[in-house]
Amino acid sequence: MGVHTETFEVRTKGKGTYEITDEIAEIVARAKIASGTATVFVRHTSCSLTLMENAAPAARRDLEKFFERLVPEDAEYEHDDEGPDDSTSHIRMALTRTSEVVPIADGQLQLGTWQGIFLFEHRRASHNRKIVVTVIGE
Amino acid sequence: MGVHTETFEVRTKGKGTYEITDEIAEIVARAKIASGTATVFVRHTSCSLTLMENAAPAARRDLEKFFERLVPEDAEYEHDDEGPDDSTSHIRMALTRTSEVVPIADGQLQLGTWQGIFLFEHRRASHNRKIVVTVIGE
Amino acid sequence: MGVHTETFEVRTKGKGTYEITDEIAEIVARAKIASGTATVFVRHTSCSLTLMENAAPAARRDLEKFFERLVPEDAEYEHDDEGPDDSTSHIRMALTRTSEVVPIADGQLQLGTWQGIFLFEHRRASHNRKIVVTVIGE
Repeated sequence: MGVHTETFEVRTKGKGTYEITDEIAEIVARAKIASGTATVFVRHTSCSLTLMENAAPAARRDLEKFFERLVPEDAEYEHDDEGPDDSTSHIRMALTRTSEVVPIADGQLQLGTWQGIFLFEHRRASHNRKIVVTVIGE
Repeated sequence: MGVHTETFEVRTKGKGTYEITDEIAEIVARAKIASGTATVFVRHTSCSLTLMENAAPAARRDLEKFFERLVPEDAEYEHDDEGPDDSTSHIRMALTRTSEVVPIADGQLQLGTWQGIFLFEHRRASHNRKIVVTVIGE
Repeated sequence: MGVHTETFEVRTKGKGTYEITDEIAEIVARAKIASGTATVFVRHTSCSLTLMENAAPAARRDLEKFFERLVPEDAEYEHDDEGPDDSTSHIRMALTRTSEVVPIADGQLQLGTWQGIFLFEHRRASHNRKIVVTVIGE
């Protein structure tokens, strides 16, 4: 049994979903762990994680449009110091995920055929987003 | 310390919640681990996991109806190759959970009295859903 | 490698977010584990967990108000034995999180600067809420 931890950064360019499956798979490969789990964690409160269909970009556009309607930027929020995407970004984060735990078997992430791991950016401006991956297993 | 992984399938028959607590408890029993965690992971993007009240089916019907209203199938979506429950199933998945981690102590899942683990099916047609359970502990 | 588990209680006084970061950090310190993960799990279906901005209370008030509008208590629910906050509390739980896994490195939770861990109470009455923290690592 052992633990392998790595942190990487994603440069986002506005709201949307950014695939990070490959970065995580490479960390799992370097961890040299045959069976266990990979915990993915974003160190921010204005972006989040989602697993999503990895083949059809239209499915992701529908998801992004849904969140624009569900948590609209033109509603009234008390906390708007950083603009209309300030409170909305925290609410969209709370409705999705900050940590996701993916099983590892035979040294590989056990994602389904259509599952990709995505960073979900909720801010308009560019950001460097830090993601920690902790692999635990044997 | 050790790792014990098992995969099982659930046959769903349309949208709704399907309890999988017993299947997971049996895997934990076979793992022979006294303390640690059980990670439950669904290998799909059109169904998800939720913990839910295990006693009152009416509470689950309210949850299911709420999602019908929140992510309606009769709205317009770009991604509808597989019907009106295509994009809606991915959005409902993103709003709930793909992985859930439950603590184990004294060899047992530490669920609260009223907590059950459910597969939340978002597609109308029948599906075989694969669920991976990874038990880590000592 | 080892496992360290502790349970603690939070006394809630009505709906809202209650910070529990310090309680979890103290358990991690007592676990004497340098690298690994801390799994936080709430043993209830009518409250949940969320990570959130820890500096601006206004951001949390916006989050709480958003959930009042998204899952309104004055809508019709089949399951209302315990009042208008019965089914709504389960739905709000399902939309947020029951388990959250936070990485540990150098013996410390790897939270971002602005991230706090909060219990999100969805019931009007006071409750004692049980939270299990399982630290796994080396």
